[in-house]
Amino acid sequence: MPSPTSILSLFLLVLAATTVSSTDQLIQMFPKQHIVGAEGDTKCESWKFSIEVNNAGTWYSIPQPCIEFVRTYIDTGRYLADSRNAAAFSLTFARSVKVGDGKGMDAWIFDVDETLLSNMPYYKATGFGTEPYNVTSYNEWVETGLAPALPATLSVYKWVKKLGFKIFILTGRPVSQSAITAQNLIDAGYSGWEKLILRGPEDEGKKATVFKSEKRAELVKQGYTIQGNTGDQWSDILGYAVAKRSFKVPNPMYYVP
Amino acid sequence: MPSPTSILSLFLLVLAATTVSSTDQLIQMFPKQHIVGAEGDTKCESWKFSIEVNNAGTWYSIPQPCIEFVRTYIDTGRYLADSRNAAAFSLTFARSVKVGDGKGMDAWIFDVDETLLSNMPYYKATGFGTEPYNVTSYNEWVETGLAPALPATLSVYKWVKKLGFKIFILTGRPVSQSAITAQNLIDAGYSGWEKLILRGPEDEGKKATVFKSEKRAELVKQGYTIQGNTGDQWSDILGYAVAKRSFKVPNPMYYVP
Repeated sequence: MPSPTSILSLFLLVLAATTVSSTDQLIQMFPKQHIVGAEGDTKCESWKFSIEVNNAGTWYSIPQPCIEFVRTYIDTGRYLADSRNAAAFSLTFARSVKVGDGKGMDAWIFDVDETLLSNMPYYKATGFGTEPYNVTSYNEWVETGLAPALPATLSVYKWVKKLGFKIFILTGRPVSQSAITAQNLIDAGYSGWEKLILRGPEDEGKKATVFKSEKRAELVKQGYTIQGNTGDQWSDILGYAVAKRSFKVPNPMYYVP
Repeated sequence: MPSPTSILSLFLLVLAATTVSSTDQLIQMFPKQHIVGAEGDTKCESWKFSIEVNNAGTWYSIPQPCIEFVRTYIDTGRYLADSRNAAAFSLTFARSVKVGDGKGMDAWIFDVDETLLSNMPYYKATGFGTEPYNVTSYNEWVETGLAPALPATLSVYKWVKKLGFKIFILTGRPVSQSAITAQNLIDAGYSGWEKLILRGPEDEGKKATVFKSEKRAELVKQGYTIQGNTGDQWSDILGYAVAKRSFKVPNPMYYVP
């Protein structure tokens, strides 16, 4: 039997609902005129929501009106705060896994760009997409091997290693960048991974989702349980042979299909 | 051969990278002290990021320090703006699909709660999770049949119907709420769906992801191509027999595993 309190709640609810039963009143319920801050910022916040939850599908560059928004998002620490929050949830999960049953087959996968390493110096210097993507200058940047670690992911990496997970680094970078990538990772503070998997000649032209799913499936075939997976792209996470838990770190700068 | 411009860019990049090669300088690159607004708000923004991209896993209620943040997010129109942005991407995709080849087997799936219908009156009246979830009062609210449409999804619904998609409404609500759900949907402006699929006795105790995947797989078996899928929960979207494109509408109020 409903309690007197729940009957009172119900009455209040019906009253509340009655006041929003017409379209006009819906607008009153969700007043557009009360949007906080600049309309542009709200639109860019919503754009950020859509790209981060993968509603946008393939997109090629930050919309012109949102370039300043993205710069602010990164410069004011929100970018780091979002990645720290993702790291906190990753660690809570990592600690909940019973690792180290002697078999050593619990795996954690990390992506490289915008996950373990940050190419922010490159994106800052090239105007966050105000300039068209230039594969030559990007590769020159990669070849410097100077990308810093994304601090929150470095922290997750160190913890999951300490907890006994086997670490696989799975990147869409080509095998030709294998040596510089390994050196850059070491310089940025990473060590002790099981394998660094790059895109081989046989993987050329494959969508990232397919390439990464295939590589995860190989690990599963070898007997690994993919417990965790950290990436900045949905193509790092979706597909098949997916991890028990996947963690999306923010990336409002570019999309990899 | 790299162009002079790309060599100059490279020099600037190396310079930029050199200035962020130590941890101290990384902090300088991502200055914490420049975080805009209250620290609490940034933390809640990051919490919102984590729950929307599914980093948080199962969560039971809005963290106490973020209840006011969620109320503001909803009251100031950001909630509506986010759902409008999701709707815009949904429509762009819907219009790109070649529907109506005469077979009429292109399907679009919609979830009900916080997708087609908004239970905001209920959540507003019960303090957005400041009160523990009460299944009795929630069901009493559902039985009123007074939930308004979420305006952005109503707009998507009308468009995809007009474009010729077959609409399936797939909800975790129990079959006992079939009649009131259909009536509520009609009153809120929805019509012309192919089938309203609710959780039957055989589905009791199944996780939403499993229940919804099974039902989607049945549609695929019947020959439908699931082109689009709109839901507020990752359990509406992930699993198997997934849609070609899935669209996540915002929900910072609750999580359905």
